[in-house]
Amino acid sequence: MYKIVLLRHGESEWNALNLFTGWTDVDLTEQGIKESKNAAKIFLKRGYTFDIIFTSVLKRCIKTAWIILDEMDAMWVPIKRSWKLNERFDGDLQGKNKVEMAKKYGEEQVFLWRRGWDNPAQPIPESDPRHPINHRKYQTLKKEEIPSIESLKDVEKRVKSYWLKEIVPEIIKGEKVLIIAHGNSLRALIKDLNDISPEKLSQINIPSGIPCVYELNNELKTIRSYYLGDPSEIQNAIQLMVDAHKFTKEN
Amino acid sequence: MYKIVLLRHGESEWNALNLFTGWTDVDLTEQGIKESKNAAKIFLKRGYTFDIIFTSVLKRCIKTAWIILDEMDAMWVPIKRSWKLNERFDGDLQGKNKVEMAKKYGEEQVFLWRRGWDNPAQPIPESDPRHPINHRKYQTLKKEEIPSIESLKDVEKRVKSYWLKEIVPEIIKGEKVLIIAHGNSLRALIKDLNDISPEKLSQINIPSGIPCVYELNNELKTIRSYYLGDPSEIQNAIQLMVDAHKFTKEN
Repeated sequence: MYKIVLLRHGESEWNALNLFTGWTDVDLTEQGIKESKNAAKIFLKRGYTFDIIFTSVLKRCIKTAWIILDEMDAMWVPIKRSWKLNERFDGDLQGKNKVEMAKKYGEEQVFLWRRGWDNPAQPIPESDPRHPINHRKYQTLKKEEIPSIESLKDVEKRVKSYWLKEIVPEIIKGEKVLIIAHGNSLRALIKDLNDISPEKLSQINIPSGIPCVYELNNELKTIRSYYLGDPSEIQNAIQLMVDAHKFTKEN
Repeated sequence: MYKIVLLRHGESEWNALNLFTGWTDVDLTEQGIKESKNAAKIFLKRGYTFDIIFTSVLKRCIKTAWIILDEMDAMWVPIKRSWKLNERFDGDLQGKNKVEMAKKYGEEQVFLWRRGWDNPAQPIPESDPRHPINHRKYQTLKKEEIPSIESLKDVEKRVKSYWLKEIVPEIIKGEKVLIIAHGNSLRALIKDLNDISPEKLSQINIPSGIPCVYELNNELKTIRSYYLGDPSEIQNAIQLMVDAHKFTKEN
């Protein structure tokens, strides 16, 4: 039996502003920093330690990792960064307000963009400053790897390849693995771990900053999973996620 | 021609207290944080970017790296940590005050311990809580690799093996390399880069937080080297290092 921990980064500046973020490299908010420290405290309290941390190349994940390692006095633990764990690349939606988009295109369409399986939003041209081709951190990617838009299906493809190539060997070796990633890269991973349908996946919401333990069998499929932390706090965080999809919050 | 940058971590809590530190995992001081930010500002001003950073497994180096990456908005740059870039393991000297040791054993002896080539201090037994065998971060080392004491000659051996195996391949690939390490692991490296004698090496002092550029030929030997930054600040920092060896400062 293997055991890994998944964690969505702490609240980011654009989570707080309710904007589509995608690959926009925004920082954590004060709340996000607090959530990250809290995750570390839970690990310390429950006796969790890690041998390796996997993150995306986006700072909201990396900073979450740094805060956790600082708080756990374990800065020496290696952090492997990869664009393959990035959030879904949201193309032209990046920077747009979710409520405004729902007013313009309807809640159903926005729900499909946000939680659908094969429902990419509008791509952007390479001339757009938001396009990854214009950022130094993606310059080592092959041309065909750089997206102009992604669906969750696209995300699942790259997450799966990274999972199999980089993460699974560490798990098999017996290393204690923490994966700090994003709402959609984690949902993509959970799809594979749990072998669930795209329909069921659309109902899964991952709260930020709350560690989730996955116990895996020899085929690396989920035996059981559970959040770590105070049950009422966990319930609140999940409810907040569900409410957010009703676009009731204007902020 | 290759170009790499060496940097000694910012001032640590025990630098400030004038204690032998070795592998004791102390944090940066406020001054050390300032020095690290300043190094980043110099890189930004001079147009330096990095593809990979090498550090020890000690937090004063790792935090220096984090502060620099945060300041340069380049957190995605991979950091490779290794105990082979650690400070010299100072055995029983660790935690002792440098001035007190000079009073007890004489300035000459302390100078030999600090700057000598093959002059190890007193080793400590494995039962000593300061011994690396009692720390989780060294648990993957082979038994024979874990020191009870080290001379600079011992440090040079491990630094050289890491240099050849891990750092050189990145340099040859054309990656822009920053090495953030310690007074003695950097002196060991400089010995190899410059092919200098142990005697001459004892006169080399590396100030904290001031980046030093090494231009290397095809055999990876130094063509020339120079500090980056304000010339008067560099001179002050070097003079402070020289003064520190005269044990004129009691703090």
